Amino acid sequence: MISTVSSFALVQDGLAAVERALADTAQPDHPLLGPMLSMVLPGSGKRLRPALALLTGRLGTYDAERLLQMATGVELLHGASLVHDDVVDESDLRRGSQTLFTRVGNALAVLVGDYLFAQSANRCVATGDVRVISLFAQTLASMCQGQIEEASRGNAPQMTLTREQYYQTIWGKTASLFVLACEGSAILAGLSESAIVGMRRYGDRLGLAFQVVDDILDFIGTEAELGKPVGSDVRQGTITLPVICLRDLISPEQFRAAFAEDDRTVVIDLVRTSGAVELAQAEADRLLAEAREALAEAPAGPARDALESLTHYVVERRV
Amino acid sequence: MISTVSSFALVQDGLAAVERALADTAQPDHPLLGPMLSMVLPGSGKRLRPALALLTGRLGTYDAERLLQMATGVELLHGASLVHDDVVDESDLRRGSQTLFTRVGNALAVLVGDYLFAQSANRCVATGDVRVISLFAQTLASMCQGQIEEASRGNAPQMTLTREQYYQTIWGKTASLFVLACEGSAILAGLSESAIVGMRRYGDRLGLAFQVVDDILDFIGTEAELGKPVGSDVRQGTITLPVICLRDLISPEQFRAAFAEDDRTVVIDLVRTSGAVELAQAEADRLLAEAREALAEAPAGPARDALESLTHYVVERRV
Repeated sequence: MISTVSSFALVQDGLAAVERALADTAQPDHPLLGPMLSMVLPGSGKRLRPALALLTGRLGTYDAERLLQMATGVELLHGASLVHDDVVDESDLRRGSQTLFTRVGNALAVLVGDYLFAQSANRCVATGDVRVISLFAQTLASMCQGQIEEASRGNAPQMTLTREQYYQTIWGKTASLFVLACEGSAILAGLSESAIVGMRRYGDRLGLAFQVVDDILDFIGTEAELGKPVGSDVRQGTITLPVICLRDLISPEQFRAAFAEDDRTVVIDLVRTSGAVELAQAEADRLLAEAREALAEAPAGPARDALESLTHYVVERRV
Repeated sequence: MISTVSSFALVQDGLAAVERALADTAQPDHPLLGPMLSMVLPGSGKRLRPALALLTGRLGTYDAERLLQMATGVELLHGASLVHDDVVDESDLRRGSQTLFTRVGNALAVLVGDYLFAQSANRCVATGDVRVISLFAQTLASMCQGQIEEASRGNAPQMTLTREQYYQTIWGKTASLFVLACEGSAILAGLSESAIVGMRRYGDRLGLAFQVVDDILDFIGTEAELGKPVGSDVRQGTITLPVICLRDLISPEQFRAAFAEDDRTVVIDLVRTSGAVELAQAEADRLLAEAREALAEAPAGPARDALESLTHYVVERRV
């Protein structure tokens, strides 16, 4: 599936090249790896992170081959983290399909995730830029640390999760990869230091907003759109921004009472009807305004326009 | 524990620095990561891989800080792979102690392994040498691919495992890391291309021999030396070189009959008494002779002498 997000039009050819690189990484001829990798790599996902990398490259002067490696490496890192996420959460479904974890079991899913980490490292190394490679290694560490902090909270009382902790978690989980795509490509494209800092901030804000919107959709999407039951996060004990906003809107007694019920239907209904969704939406809008502001540091032109229009796509999307 | 292997005397200071770097990576002040990392990082293991990296560095002209990063990165990669190995094998014990997997569970052990991969990447990137970093990423891929092939064989008939498949598996599992330590440091030390090739071959042969000896010890060591029951590999369904040698020594009927018993006692006894151990030992000796031959490409001196004496240590060790 080549993405149909309109902001990606400028980099359709690059995205097609990424798709071919991913299909190649899936080792179609390998009897063991081929079938497992083909469950997670080709034709899945919106390719938002590669598109960010490719569009950012267009802000400057880039070597097409190196930029392709960067865009592919970022998507492979994303894929690796999803495979291990499903292991950690013991998830059955992702995007409406059975997860690799469910299909091949814990052991092989751990190893396939490791293999994808290795392949993403190979792609980032192939950019030949030590600064970019260093950013890649830092990103990997941030992602893991964020996941460990989330997993360690486990069954401890999530209800007291602060807004700051929430943003820290989603930074590691989502925004760090957006930063890698944007900052890494800005370096490869030879942008000025102030433009690199701007693109880092753009990736950071866009990534946070993207995850906030994801967490909102978990409450207001339909099961068909989500590919999983509505309110899955809170049902599994994960507190996200809409619930934190709900806590700000009702009394501590009401909040505790809502959580007294086992299946979380009351919490889900309250999030949908109390104005919590609108408050969370306002936070996403603020983040996206900051992302657009940060873009001012980048050179004007069609690539910057596309990056700006992406900030609107992020908030309007339903899946 | 600073290693007491005599061949390491030349690099005692460097090994002490690696130990401090590992203790630092264990994040003693971090409430979540500290306790988990301290279970796997400091004071454990013989530090054979860092010693190889440090000794190889001494063959040429090296920057102490970069070499330290290399030596630490290799040991972190080793640690990461052990953590995931225990997840994949659902192992309770390693070196006589409970594994991280047993202590903190599947999810956190997966994430801590990922975190260690990230930290090892950070260290290798800190060498600043793209050729070394690229070797690191390739090594990671080889290790994963080897593990996947081993895990995929799973409960399929292991009895037909060929010698070639066995060596492929242990190359990915063990020798690839020895190669990274030796070849990576040879590059950092500015050795000639022929010396780099020689050190690559030395690491390759030493690593294979090390694993063969490990697989022999699994049959002839005591439970106290092994920190786990004798014959654990074959009891868990993993065929190693001593069993392949046994298959060469007895008839197919005898071999099948030996495996008919559930607890593998007959197989273990046969390996110990049939001459299979001696055959496997001869293969290790041959590999070590090749490792010594490869050393001829490296500059003579105390570091090369220490690397040569390591080939004797590998075959004489009991743990």
